[in-house]
Amino acid sequence: MHTLAPAISAPRADATATRPGRLARVAIAGATGYTGQELLRLLARHPAVALTAAMTSGTGAPRPLPAIARIWDGALTPLSEETLARDADVVFLAVPDAVAAEIAPALVDAGLRVVDLSGAFRLQSADARAKWYPETQRIPSAVAYGLTERAREAVAGARLVANPGCYPTATLLALAPLVDADVLVPGADIIIDAKSGVSGAGKTPSERTHFSECYGNLSAYGIFNHRHAAEIEQGIGGTSVTFVPHLVPLDRGILATIYVRLKSDVTETSLAGVYARAYADAPFVRLVGSALPEIKHVAHTNFCDIGWRVDPTGRAVLVSVIDNLVKGAAGQAVQNLNVMLGVNESTGLI
Amino acid sequence: MHTLAPAISAPRADATATRPGRLARVAIAGATGYTGQELLRLLARHPAVALTAAMTSGTGAPRPLPAIARIWDGALTPLSEETLARDADVVFLAVPDAVAAEIAPALVDAGLRVVDLSGAFRLQSADARAKWYPETQRIPSAVAYGLTERAREAVAGARLVANPGCYPTATLLALAPLVDADVLVPGADIIIDAKSGVSGAGKTPSERTHFSECYGNLSAYGIFNHRHAAEIEQGIGGTSVTFVPHLVPLDRGILATIYVRLKSDVTETSLAGVYARAYADAPFVRLVGSALPEIKHVAHTNFCDIGWRVDPTGRAVLVSVIDNLVKGAAGQAVQNLNVMLGVNESTGLI
Amino acid sequence: MHTLAPAISAPRADATATRPGRLARVAIAGATGYTGQELLRLLARHPAVALTAAMTSGTGAPRPLPAIARIWDGALTPLSEETLARDADVVFLAVPDAVAAEIAPALVDAGLRVVDLSGAFRLQSADARAKWYPETQRIPSAVAYGLTERAREAVAGARLVANPGCYPTATLLALAPLVDADVLVPGADIIIDAKSGVSGAGKTPSERTHFSECYGNLSAYGIFNHRHAAEIEQGIGGTSVTFVPHLVPLDRGILATIYVRLKSDVTETSLAGVYARAYADAPFVRLVGSALPEIKHVAHTNFCDIGWRVDPTGRAVLVSVIDNLVKGAAGQAVQNLNVMLGVNESTGLI
Amino acid sequence: MHTLAPAISAPRADATATRPGRLARVAIAGATGYTGQELLRLLARHPAVALTAAMTSGTGAPRPLPAIARIWDGALTPLSEETLARDADVVFLAVPDAVAAEIAPALVDAGLRVVDLSGAFRLQSADARAKWYPETQRIPSAVAYGLTERAREAVAGARLVANPGCYPTATLLALAPLVDADVLVPGADIIIDAKSGVSGAGKTPSERTHFSECYGNLSAYGIFNHRHAAEIEQGIGGTSVTFVPHLVPLDRGILATIYVRLKSDVTETSLAGVYARAYADAPFVRLVGSALPEIKHVAHTNFCDIGWRVDPTGRAVLVSVIDNLVKGAAGQAVQNLNVMLGVNESTGLI
Repeated sequence: MHTLAPAISAPRADATATRPGRLARVAIAGATGYTGQELLRLLARHPAVALTAAMTSGTGAPRPLPAIARIWDGALTPLSEETLARDADVVFLAVPDAVAAEIAPALVDAGLRVVDLSGAFRLQSADARAKWYPETQRIPSAVAYGLTERAREAVAGARLVANPGCYPTATLLALAPLVDADVLVPGADIIIDAKSGVSGAGKTPSERTHFSECYGNLSAYGIFNHRHAAEIEQGIGGTSVTFVPHLVPLDRGILATIYVRLKSDVTETSLAGVYARAYADAPFVRLVGSALPEIKHVAHTNFCDIGWRVDPTGRAVLVSVIDNLVKGAAGQAVQNLNVMLGVNESTGLI
Repeated sequence: MHTLAPAISAPRADATATRPGRLARVAIAGATGYTGQELLRLLARHPAVALTAAMTSGTGAPRPLPAIARIWDGALTPLSEETLARDADVVFLAVPDAVAAEIAPALVDAGLRVVDLSGAFRLQSADARAKWYPETQRIPSAVAYGLTERAREAVAGARLVANPGCYPTATLLALAPLVDADVLVPGADIIIDAKSGVSGAGKTPSERTHFSECYGNLSAYGIFNHRHAAEIEQGIGGTSVTFVPHLVPLDRGILATIYVRLKSDVTETSLAGVYARAYADAPFVRLVGSALPEIKHVAHTNFCDIGWRVDPTGRAVLVSVIDNLVKGAAGQAVQNLNVMLGVNESTGLI
Repeated sequence: MHTLAPAISAPRADATATRPGRLARVAIAGATGYTGQELLRLLARHPAVALTAAMTSGTGAPRPLPAIARIWDGALTPLSEETLARDADVVFLAVPDAVAAEIAPALVDAGLRVVDLSGAFRLQSADARAKWYPETQRIPSAVAYGLTERAREAVAGARLVANPGCYPTATLLALAPLVDADVLVPGADIIIDAKSGVSGAGKTPSERTHFSECYGNLSAYGIFNHRHAAEIEQGIGGTSVTFVPHLVPLDRGILATIYVRLKSDVTETSLAGVYARAYADAPFVRLVGSALPEIKHVAHTNFCDIGWRVDPTGRAVLVSVIDNLVKGAAGQAVQNLNVMLGVNESTGLI
Repeated sequence: MHTLAPAISAPRADATATRPGRLARVAIAGATGYTGQELLRLLARHPAVALTAAMTSGTGAPRPLPAIARIWDGALTPLSEETLARDADVVFLAVPDAVAAEIAPALVDAGLRVVDLSGAFRLQSADARAKWYPETQRIPSAVAYGLTERAREAVAGARLVANPGCYPTATLLALAPLVDADVLVPGADIIIDAKSGVSGAGKTPSERTHFSECYGNLSAYGIFNHRHAAEIEQGIGGTSVTFVPHLVPLDRGILATIYVRLKSDVTETSLAGVYARAYADAPFVRLVGSALPEIKHVAHTNFCDIGWRVDPTGRAVLVSVIDNLVKGAAGQAVQNLNVMLGVNESTGLI
């Protein structure tokens, strides 16, 4: 059995050097996509881990990653469950859903802990999973849905952490505390108008992600038919939402504008109280209130900035921003790792 | 008194040459802003008009407009009501609200017809106008709100056309036909989440429009406090809406995502019928249905593309796109001119 | 034999309606790429032509082009040489080099005139052609290299016009008059540092044209190994140049910065004279001198703006800008058509 | 006298907490501009320093910096030389040239060490300085020009480090080793075609930096008249260069394309040797050879990537990329700090 060392005993000297035995040995499967490269950047300089392998999930010889040189100079290797089981304590899966669905249970069986950035294990309802992630056949025990701020205990004890989707992360951090605090009018519509940069669509070339198609453009997609809606609804106890994502011409970042109805007597100030209580101990949630958040303030960081406005008739608009590749993917994965290892939640992230 | 010739009698030879007497003589006040330059481009090649003056509204010597050379090679001159009264039949005002509020009534008094692209005369309620456009003191007679597709008759007979705001144009073309057709659930929330390119903020430099602030950024603004909300509400008979504009990192274009509740039995197909009837004779409205529209398809054109999706529970999402400088400003102004002159509505616009 | 009517006899009423017999019948092969769509836009509203066919060169059912609706509402059809021979007087080829190389000679044999936007027939030297365009096996008679401003006579009489490449267009319009006027120091280096928007790379998705790869990025490519260098050298009588293209994060536009050495006594003013003489009758070349041109001023137009600076030691920097899809492709193709038809060179282009 | 502690004795716990006495106390003057904010980010997490003050140089109450919250939560204070002298060992000046020219000598007199990011002290020739930086009246003793890779010894002993300009940094790192190695043809032209993102123009709003002016645009500026040319010439022993900067539509990054002539027998491979020797110990210079560098690979990092191509006739093209705000400003300033403090040059930068 693997021992996951909780301590940070040594200052970081050289990210690629062998680390003392007490560092957690981590590996990345799927290191060349946008999320995988972000994981490489973060884990290479993380003081509590030794990055022991970076694997590619596709076929073909791995190509070098020039942006990563000097940050991590190890060799990319083909995906190998055997090597993972031998050389890693924790594995980050940044691979397609179907690949994750297949290998994650085996890795857990082999005694590893897994942070899965795919969608394969995010949905708890078997029906929803069958609809949106039909490749997922077997669920390991001790799975936690890793929206860190709302699941620290479960994450700490999990064998597999299902890292949340980017849209659900931005949305739920703003919306869920209001549901918990019971300040929303029951049955009233909840509308989520979300805008995402193009890196959220992944690295595979397509007409939709061609520069000339995205540049100067803006469009809605997936109306009434996006699996992140199911994930959001799961995160607020099953209440229905209307979720419309949009593709905007920037590389990184999500902004979610959320329209809700508040019970009478709930004010802008009382929402401030709700959020302050919910995130008293959350190093990565910044509450900006009526100042309204901007993607630029969170790009390349693990922060989620949340703002809100309330009018006298009980209408409220919540605005939440994250970097989809960091708090919406790789950064939150590392945040979950920190919780799993028992180290400070911000380690390697500020 | 001025005679506004309805006929197009001569093919366009040289845009800057003197035209035969029967062409309408038009002038632009405020020719150097983004809207003014777009007007210059459109009117210089318009076959039914002679562009007799292009004036600047600010102080200081007019600087040349290199993008316009060869398209229009006349001289920019300082704003002069006297010259306008002498040399023009129709004046386009692309000046600040306060300037328009001051000079428009006098121009109408002098017998000219005015297409005003400012907001000064858009709101009919004195209360709303006092709140949002306090500079507007006197309203000429025969003012039409120039959302062309919905006001052809009024525009044809107007002395002053109040050209709609960019957000209201995109929103009302999608929303108003549903109100007219009485297919919305009374009292249900109407949410308008609108996204605009930066040219909508005008040409005056500010921190907010600095390239490095907008680039890679996205933000909401003006929540519960934007004068275009009043204009939208006026356009649908006073019903309240929730309107949240966003600044997106592109130059031109607006996309409005509109969330409504439909009466039972109203389907995606029945909405198609509603729109088809509303826009049977509208050359610039293209109905794309469930295909969903994109800003790229309307950029640099006077088109408004409208799409929609309906789910079995009666939720509907409408998506409308325009180029904010064309259909949202200069193009619609020319469309209104065409209606005023009695020529084909598309003249000079396709 | 086809008669190419020189006259513009009828005002444009409806771009898609059948036109009177004396209009030139034109067709586009390759209508769905970026260049093809630009051709569609220009030819649909061109008053001297009837657009009789728009064909796709690839396999698979043609998909609709929503941006073109109402501008041209005809049906896309698969490439058919037979139909072209029957229904067109002039064919625009916006197809891959290999396709153009194959079908152009046959179309000329069939009596059609061809404007070829591929590179297949641009190089006159058999050696250079064998190196850069090995698919080109047979050259029709009466081929003209269609840099319009420098080839009006040849274009007027040509059966096939080889429409220039985008980089050569921007470069040669600035450079060639100085070679003609013999003001350059013989043997001194000529350096062309060119920057192009991404649409120049075509519509086929690739990692290189992925939004997230281009966004926020800038890179040089093709150093000492780009076929446009051969085309530029041909355009200035075979003198060698150093040509380095760069990909910049914008959709449209090329800016070429050209470094040359002037003979003594050649000044900024004397260059102005050289250019003024060269372009006295050129409606699409705008000389901006020391003001320096900007891509924004020519985007979506057929203009080429040229600026220059000279220092006392004889160094000169020339700057030339075009829209790569218009003056660098579809616009210049239409300009060539105008010359072929004997109509005003600006027809349909301003 | 101040003792600048060379040791890193404590792991970083909370960036804003008071640090043990042996950390260097650093302050930023001009913390709110783009460079100043980047300095804040870097110094707040630097393990060898205590950030004791962040000052604004302009008038008016300092506004909060939402992007910096949680990274550094101290208060912005107005510029005070007195406070600097009391609370800091090292001061970073990210203020206008005139302000730096005035206060830097006094700070050095007061015993502080200064890293000046303005241009005030970069030029050693009194004539050049009088032309480009006339505000600079007095030069402190022990000034080093801080192109770190080429000046470690001077920087280590300097009282004031003149941090290089962004264009000279990108250019000299590629060009200077070739001059040192004497591989260039004497007297042959050296052409530097440089492209910069808009943040290099600073934060003050202007028409030139308006989003709508930069977006989709590209232009040259400052031809034969840019002070960075003088700085580049100084860096290669006074040899003349032709330097043309361009503004490109991205936020961060510079790419310099440099055209030189090599002596016979100098090959692509021998250049590789020249660079490898020059940068054997340079953690932030990555040599990519014929692969050619891209801005995307260095954005948000302190790296300078250098590539090159050579042809058989002795022409060479060098391509160098940096992030103008990091290696071109704040990052190199911290790199210089590290050398001044005697800590590892990469501390806080990877």
